[in-house]
Amino acid sequence: MTGPDETHDPAQRGWAPGADGHADFPVQNLPLGVFSPPGGTPRGGVAIGDGILDLAGLVDAGLLSGQAREAAQAASGPTLNPLLALGAGPRRALRAELFRLLTDAGAAARVRPFLHDATVCAVHLPAAIGDYTDFYVGIHHANNIGKQFRPDNPLLPNYKHIPIGYHGPASSVRASGVPVQRPNGQTKAPDAAGPSFGPCRRLDYELELGVWVGPGNKPGEPIPVAAAAEHIAGYCLLNDWSARDFQAWEYQPLGPSTSKNFASTVSCWVVTPEALGLFQHSPAAASAGRPGAAALPARPG
Amino acid sequence: MTGPDETHDPAQRGWAPGADGHADFPVQNLPLGVFSPPGGTPRGGVAIGDGILDLAGLVDAGLLSGQAREAAQAASGPTLNPLLALGAGPRRALRAELFRLLTDAGAAARVRPFLHDATVCAVHLPAAIGDYTDFYVGIHHANNIGKQFRPDNPLLPNYKHIPIGYHGPASSVRASGVPVQRPNGQTKAPDAAGPSFGPCRRLDYELELGVWVGPGNKPGEPIPVAAAAEHIAGYCLLNDWSARDFQAWEYQPLGPSTSKNFASTVSCWVVTPEALGLFQHSPAAASAGRPGAAALPARPG
Repeated sequence: MTGPDETHDPAQRGWAPGADGHADFPVQNLPLGVFSPPGGTPRGGVAIGDGILDLAGLVDAGLLSGQAREAAQAASGPTLNPLLALGAGPRRALRAELFRLLTDAGAAARVRPFLHDATVCAVHLPAAIGDYTDFYVGIHHANNIGKQFRPDNPLLPNYKHIPIGYHGPASSVRASGVPVQRPNGQTKAPDAAGPSFGPCRRLDYELELGVWVGPGNKPGEPIPVAAAAEHIAGYCLLNDWSARDFQAWEYQPLGPSTSKNFASTVSCWVVTPEALGLFQHSPAAASAGRPGAAALPARPG
Repeated sequence: MTGPDETHDPAQRGWAPGADGHADFPVQNLPLGVFSPPGGTPRGGVAIGDGILDLAGLVDAGLLSGQAREAAQAASGPTLNPLLALGAGPRRALRAELFRLLTDAGAAARVRPFLHDATVCAVHLPAAIGDYTDFYVGIHHANNIGKQFRPDNPLLPNYKHIPIGYHGPASSVRASGVPVQRPNGQTKAPDAAGPSFGPCRRLDYELELGVWVGPGNKPGEPIPVAAAAEHIAGYCLLNDWSARDFQAWEYQPLGPSTSKNFASTVSCWVVTPEALGLFQHSPAAASAGRPGAAALPARPG
């Protein structure tokens, strides 16, 4: 992650409709996603104010150059995977050029033809997900959930030594807004002789931080901790849906299966590490309650 | 699965080099895969004797018709996914037409240009794997493995009621023959104060039956047991590699992760349910040690 720069300056204003002071999509954010304009096919875009900017359109119009153009071309198809595979350099260049175009009133006439009203567009899952791993991190959460299954023993001996997690089916990760169907499965009441089958009665979800990984590594080639940030393409919010009654019965010894594989829902916008540059803290500063290395003040609110 | 037909008749002989009496690839088998001929790109093929038959070539030459042609076209690209998505009808039609072409000496001159010597071809993972679930089935196996982790309690109370399994990362499934690298990870000796990091010392593998699923279902739409066979596109052998020392330390409470996600290797050929039609038994017949409903005798050996 790089430090704050001019793209984080809260005094900067975007000219796009709704961008000035937008709670989610001011010009300092510029998250990436996949959308379909009315009558159009899915393609990569950037949320800005009340609109979505078509990246392929900017490329075709010659409004981007160099690595920024390379990144936008990679994001022109129905998934962002080619962009995620490029790594940080082109993504950072794209952010810088988009920021320039969207804060320069003189560029508005050339850019506006590629800006779609978000309310008439469909948004999609931003990438084809190859693998999905759910880590059981956050010690307060692990304590709370652990007590549901092991009241006297919520944290097991390994918890503080290795990242505990399980692999989920990638096909269960769906775009936020898609209805989640209550699953059927097997439960066993403590006093019942055997299990019974029926709808989940203890449907639950956890709000988690989703991390979009790219470009990633080859099998057997570890990524050193110091290089990990170069393989994080973005973040999103994730709802991890669970059938707690199924989970209690099925999870031993190989972990949750039916209880966790019916849905995980993610926001459709990928917030880049660069967009969060202003909020980067060292762990030491965070634990001391002090602000981090940010050179620019955070926006109010 | 349909019953035995003329394509299972052990008296039938294929004209392709090595097909007659081939231990793996006689004309009664006809497994599907993806291969690259010398200098060529990956495409779908069928193993026959000492060769691999290029399905796209048969289509281009007009040697297939109807559903068989549809199936071969779907298998012409770098993965068999489009074929797996078609379901059983086209796959069965393809088997019938290939059997006819490969047992008809009169067709040999037209088919032979699309038959490549297998020894000079590369074979690949036959499909892009969207999800991978490892089921802990086979009660003798579960007893044996369970004793490694819970000597007094190998089978947990749920074992005989629900299919116990875990989701593995789809990217870890690789073609047989790719070297498997010994993973590094965390272990904790029972008498050690804390864990240590290093190469796996208890590398293990289990030989399992792999099932290629297609066309599959939509989220929330269950497949009734009676329709399950229509969604099995084929079978393979699978080596499930495990780092048992990592597994013992990490697997509670959410199941194996690092211990199982470095490699699962599969054979490159998808054996269709039709190829196994001769060996179809009812569970009752199997448990009684009697042969099943097969109308034709199995090949000797």
